[in-house]
Amino acid sequence: MGNYSAAALTDVFYALADPTRRAIVGALGRGPETVSALAAPFEMALPSFMKHLSVLERCGLIRSDKLGRVRTCELQPRALGDAEQWLAEQRATWEARSDRMARFVEQLHQEDLHREPRKARQRR
Amino acid sequence: MGNYSAAALTDVFYALADPTRRAIVGALGRGPETVSALAAPFEMALPSFMKHLSVLERCGLIRSDKLGRVRTCELQPRALGDAEQWLAEQRATWEARSDRMARFVEQLHQEDLHREPRKARQRR
Repeated sequence: MGNYSAAALTDVFYALADPTRRAIVGALGRGPETVSALAAPFEMALPSFMKHLSVLERCGLIRSDKLGRVRTCELQPRALGDAEQWLAEQRATWEARSDRMARFVEQLHQEDLHREPRKARQRR
Repeated sequence: MGNYSAAALTDVFYALADPTRRAIVGALGRGPETVSALAAPFEMALPSFMKHLSVLERCGLIRSDKLGRVRTCELQPRALGDAEQWLAEQRATWEARSDRMARFVEQLHQEDLHREPRKARQRR
């Protein structure tokens, strides 16, 4: 298991369950941005946009700093990494199971091959 | 970009924004389970548990089949893969940017090294 907490992971997945917030994460992946530059592509009132930023900031996906009257946002890749790690762990569990299944099917197949000549002899 | 839709991704992230639903995904990664076996470890009324299963099923993370009176659930790893792919894309964007930053800093450093001897001469 990773070193993230279940509550933190819940908040990160909740934050990502919104297309506007995912678009903000995508934009900040290319570098820090001011709030006004970030908000520009969205047809949304600024207070609604600020609420999305606040959800992202509370769960640690972004941080923001104010210099004078300009607030700048920055991606915090660690929270994204925790979510990715959780998903990778689920895939690892799933793939380990699929491998066991494949080995089991292969084993049945091999047993069948060994049994086949005997059946063939019985038929003659 | 992946071939998942934004709406599907929103639903998958929303489904994962709950510790019970993540635990169900974790359990089903080890293989299909009946609803009653899945529900057993949770201190939760069955109707509440069924609601969680329904959220997981609607977004395609699990599927279920009923045989007689027994309903069995199975993980559908594709939806998990879509979420993982989206996160990996964000990381790739972020890492490409970090690489560009590192090259830029290195370039500044090299320029400084070339400028240094001149400065040293000027000081003499």
